[in-house]
Amino acid sequence: MPRLTAATAPLTRTVDVLDEFGATRHIAIPAERALTVFVDNRELVTLMTLGAAPELLVLGYLRNQRLVEHLTDIDSITVDWDVQAAAVKTRAGIEHFEQKTAKRIVTTGCGQGTMFGDLMGDLESICLPAVNEPTARISQSALYGLLNAMRVQESTYKSAGSVHGCALFRQDELLTFVEDVGRHNAIDTIAGWMWLHGVGGGDKIFYTTGRLTSEMVIKSAQMGVPIIVSRSGVTQMGHELAVQLKLALFGRAMNRHFICYSGFERFDSQPEPARS
Amino acid sequence: MPRLTAATAPLTRTVDVLDEFGATRHIAIPAERALTVFVDNRELVTLMTLGAAPELLVLGYLRNQRLVEHLTDIDSITVDWDVQAAAVKTRAGIEHFEQKTAKRIVTTGCGQGTMFGDLMGDLESICLPAVNEPTARISQSALYGLLNAMRVQESTYKSAGSVHGCALFRQDELLTFVEDVGRHNAIDTIAGWMWLHGVGGGDKIFYTTGRLTSEMVIKSAQMGVPIIVSRSGVTQMGHELAVQLKLALFGRAMNRHFICYSGFERFDSQPEPARS
Repeated sequence: MPRLTAATAPLTRTVDVLDEFGATRHIAIPAERALTVFVDNRELVTLMTLGAAPELLVLGYLRNQRLVEHLTDIDSITVDWDVQAAAVKTRAGIEHFEQKTAKRIVTTGCGQGTMFGDLMGDLESICLPAVNEPTARISQSALYGLLNAMRVQESTYKSAGSVHGCALFRQDELLTFVEDVGRHNAIDTIAGWMWLHGVGGGDKIFYTTGRLTSEMVIKSAQMGVPIIVSRSGVTQMGHELAVQLKLALFGRAMNRHFICYSGFERFDSQPEPARS
Repeated sequence: MPRLTAATAPLTRTVDVLDEFGATRHIAIPAERALTVFVDNRELVTLMTLGAAPELLVLGYLRNQRLVEHLTDIDSITVDWDVQAAAVKTRAGIEHFEQKTAKRIVTTGCGQGTMFGDLMGDLESICLPAVNEPTARISQSALYGLLNAMRVQESTYKSAGSVHGCALFRQDELLTFVEDVGRHNAIDTIAGWMWLHGVGGGDKIFYTTGRLTSEMVIKSAQMGVPIIVSRSGVTQMGHELAVQLKLALFGRAMNRHFICYSGFERFDSQPEPARS
């Protein structure tokens, strides 16, 4: 297991604002800080993050960018907020480091400079559980349970707004929850948590407050998760990928409302009574 | 003036979904397509975009990434959706292309691989109009006018959701409006429009549906715009930058509600009567 620090920093700060009534108020806004990642003393990337779980973020970033293959390749991740840096020490260096990072230049998608081109090429290697696998399905009541767990979850969003939340569920049981200023950071952090704890995705459900764009669907599928639930909607490419991968996508999901966009075969519908 | 194509593609598509009542519905979702940008036949980047104004997006991207200094350096931008490519032809090549694009690797922020490190370093070169300059201020009634113009604006968001909108205003007069799947693409497209038409930012107001993170504030300030209005909130670094630049930031702005986060000196408050 890699050694990780447990760096902490305030997640919100209070600022003075003026509202429409001409009144000065003190409100909380979410932190946003630069974290520059060094791998074996070489600068890799600067991530703008809330700072809730920086070590897991770096771990998941390395994983999702496919820079590191095995967890045991990483000796330690040391985050020091005083210098806004994360130092990653590997056991034996990263093979083809220049080549792997150079590739990012030409394939930067809408978020974070992901290796988008490669990810699309790797789609065929993604294998999700069969649609009739009971743990890779969800019923309407379990979906409601999941949404209720998110509703009661304490969060920076509730106190300060302007952050995205991601969570991993086993049916309606919340396993881990993370927030960040970018939805890509949040999903990378979840990926880091899964990797660190050896948690597989096949019987899990991924929840996000963010939109289901192509990259979110790909990242989730890469984590082996067959079901995604979002408070927001979906884009065309996110939808197409989900259909292709037989991944169940739920959007506009809040309280007892939702839209199932794809993967109907994984869903046990228990219809609400029709509106009168 | 560079020669630009006027490539078009459908902005939405209809998909079959299942709702909480067990009913199948046909709803629109926004398009999302890959646009790979080639500069003088060299692959630069792949942007995931709605596709509403791809030529202006590429123009603004080149501008905001500081890859091209003068509009006249660009001979043409040719977008062909059949091959999902934008071909940029320059008049005399781009100096230090490798060096400029290599820099992106280590400074990728939360969006689009922007040259964040450099942008921060360049803050001192940003000069916004004085706070008492009448055209660089806004009154509460003009702010309401602006919000009303956004409210009645036809949009892909209204028909399909899941896109970000950006607009440029002179007081409450809407000059241009664009939507994209990523808020960075939307602001880059506005930047492209301003650059193409030689429009300065000093007497303009920038509106976005997205959150005011550091990169959004920096990009707006780089365009010389002293006032930003958002339907969403602000992060700590976005706030700090705005304070430092004496930029007026309005968030949570919708109908007759808003919060002024910074740049109070640019704002003529006309308080609503207190709530009873």
